[in-house]
Amino acid sequence: MTIDDVQAYMQETGRRARAAARVLAAATTAQKNAALEAMADILDRSREKLAGENRKDLEAGREKGLSDALLDRLELTPARIDTMIEGLRQIAALPDPIGEIFDLKYRPSGIQVGRMRVPLGVVGIIYESRPNVTADAAALCLKSGNATVLRGGSEAFHSNQAIAAAIREGLEKAGLPGDSVQVVQTTDRAAVGAMITLPEYIDVIIPRGGKGLIERISNEARVPVIKHLDGICHVYVDDEADPQKAFDVALNAKTQRYGTCNTMETLLVHDTVAADFLPRLAEAMWEKGVELRGCEKTRTILGEKCLPATEEDWDTEYLAPILSIRVVDGIDQAMEHIEAHSSRHTDAIVTENYTKARRFLQEVDSSSVMVNASTRFADGFEYGLGAEIGISTDKFHARGPVGLEGLTSVKFIVLGDGQVRQ
Amino acid sequence: MTIDDVQAYMQETGRRARAAARVLAAATTAQKNAALEAMADILDRSREKLAGENRKDLEAGREKGLSDALLDRLELTPARIDTMIEGLRQIAALPDPIGEIFDLKYRPSGIQVGRMRVPLGVVGIIYESRPNVTADAAALCLKSGNATVLRGGSEAFHSNQAIAAAIREGLEKAGLPGDSVQVVQTTDRAAVGAMITLPEYIDVIIPRGGKGLIERISNEARVPVIKHLDGICHVYVDDEADPQKAFDVALNAKTQRYGTCNTMETLLVHDTVAADFLPRLAEAMWEKGVELRGCEKTRTILGEKCLPATEEDWDTEYLAPILSIRVVDGIDQAMEHIEAHSSRHTDAIVTENYTKARRFLQEVDSSSVMVNASTRFADGFEYGLGAEIGISTDKFHARGPVGLEGLTSVKFIVLGDGQVRQ
Repeated sequence: MTIDDVQAYMQETGRRARAAARVLAAATTAQKNAALEAMADILDRSREKLAGENRKDLEAGREKGLSDALLDRLELTPARIDTMIEGLRQIAALPDPIGEIFDLKYRPSGIQVGRMRVPLGVVGIIYESRPNVTADAAALCLKSGNATVLRGGSEAFHSNQAIAAAIREGLEKAGLPGDSVQVVQTTDRAAVGAMITLPEYIDVIIPRGGKGLIERISNEARVPVIKHLDGICHVYVDDEADPQKAFDVALNAKTQRYGTCNTMETLLVHDTVAADFLPRLAEAMWEKGVELRGCEKTRTILGEKCLPATEEDWDTEYLAPILSIRVVDGIDQAMEHIEAHSSRHTDAIVTENYTKARRFLQEVDSSSVMVNASTRFADGFEYGLGAEIGISTDKFHARGPVGLEGLTSVKFIVLGDGQVRQ
Repeated sequence: MTIDDVQAYMQETGRRARAAARVLAAATTAQKNAALEAMADILDRSREKLAGENRKDLEAGREKGLSDALLDRLELTPARIDTMIEGLRQIAALPDPIGEIFDLKYRPSGIQVGRMRVPLGVVGIIYESRPNVTADAAALCLKSGNATVLRGGSEAFHSNQAIAAAIREGLEKAGLPGDSVQVVQTTDRAAVGAMITLPEYIDVIIPRGGKGLIERISNEARVPVIKHLDGICHVYVDDEADPQKAFDVALNAKTQRYGTCNTMETLLVHDTVAADFLPRLAEAMWEKGVELRGCEKTRTILGEKCLPATEEDWDTEYLAPILSIRVVDGIDQAMEHIEAHSSRHTDAIVTENYTKARRFLQEVDSSSVMVNASTRFADGFEYGLGAEIGISTDKFHARGPVGLEGLTSVKFIVLGDGQVRQ
């Protein structure tokens, strides 16, 4: 599709999204769930078409010389289509957050004041190659009563349009506006610039992709952005840690998966236990092929096989089988290191000491702070949010894993019997 | 004070605020309360100095030809100093929101996941002539564990600096960093531009002042802004309204105070009750000196004394004894009018009908939505928030009256016994 005037096209897209958002805000739970189930059914029946459109993207990608990793992310295998369909049904099964009334209390004036959960309005999603995000993100926004404008990567254009067609059909089948979920129909990069500067039509932008994309969008956006920058996560093994828990947590936090944002990148160890703890852990790490980079004290204990860590290592999100290790003289130095180098995503302490556990929970300023648990738990599903649209490293509005609630706002409601203010 | 390099000065102010914020985040409730009480005591002993510095501002203001209204807002009368001191003690008496842990639940993995309320970090306040805002805003931010950078109007410079000195003394007396509350020591307008573009040091900006100031700041800020634009509030009198409640609510919503943002500016009346309801209300309004501007149907009922309303009236925040009135054919037309013209601050319905009350509460997208109560109740004190730093007309982060909770964020906490992710 050729669109000559991208600015005008995005204005029109925004206007339609706003109109759809008004209808969605008053849609019943049954309608929203019916739409999600219908989308799942239609995607299930459209497997051939999806695969065909996806092949177009894969072929174009190969011609353009995309890396194997990118081509892999782009591919809609039958298993990934299953997951996408299953995801829609799971979101249909989640409780509807909209309309929840809480904190309803009588005030001395006789009025009853409470709060009601309402949609944010229109959510803009800007994402890179994975086409399954189209269905996931649209479903979460729909369930929380928001209209969505999605702008996927140009390399997934045909796949995204095919998914979008199924979503629109599902919405209309359930009697909801087809414009509730709009996938931008141009690969012109100007569409992103337009989308992030339409505060009258788009209430929040959620970018999903690399740090470069997210930083660029945050810097240029004229609307709020729920952003997820890097995950430089720490585990601090205290002198009063249970050695087995420390071993299990550290090994899992690093090796359960390497490429995730909640993977530990730096291990901090109390100096009085370092000589006991580190050699055993290092053996297990090396066995799994993890490269270790240590401070001087760490290398005194582990020897030459542990490479020297540079200042840069403390600020690096490896997303790879590499771990930096620093020996510290106690919880204060550990928290100072975290304060200086953590990306404020997820940090954990391993200790049996009540007061140190309490201090760490209170003083470490990260979106998830843990005691005696693997950083890998920092995830919307593990936290019981049901699903997750992203993890926010901001402090404003939503922090940490963002589920349906992060896509809502809250208004005050007042119930009276004719009260007036004195 | 002359500051040559405003950008460098604001950077340094921000850096100090960030350092103070770290200490404040871990400060005990007792320390914060002791600082607030000490500030109150010191202000109480500094009345003469305050009055003297305030006189300098008043004299300079008269020379500059400030309006009487502005000079009045600038003046620190003994009664206003009392109110300021009393405000500090009231905030000391409020419960500390920081550290509250809620929703702590076990997950199938065995970890316990909950949320802990934490400060936002550094709050920037940009305000106009009222010097009492300096103490009010600083106290609310301190109680919620945030450092503050305050930038008051140049016309209140000496008054603000005198209040700032008392605040700093109180903080230091309680063992908290003097930099926890910094009042910008230059009247150079470049300080505002610097302040709103320091995301590394300032987490949120709260502008308090006219719509022009707030719009300018929102447009230029590189950090989140909690903003309060205008208050075009509506009362809809339904055909099933109790006439006495409708009369009381409408009269109070307009006339209890004219210049406040939660004052009704437009009255919507169902056409089947308009002929009964409007004449009696109009008499009462006219008696209080309120000018009425009506749609054609309204003027048919009220006659020539009711002036004709133009399209512009529906979009005007009068902040004055003027009321526009429109006769509508039912709740749908009333809600359409509100959708088109409300500033989404506060809107109310008067009705005895259960279903219409429920629809209005759900469908009207304003920060406060009321049934059978005066819009004048939309206020942090009336809602039981204890105090209010402003009213947000945004949907993101905080909506409606913003008390201590609006100055906080929430992080996830995870308590485990060595659990690892499978």
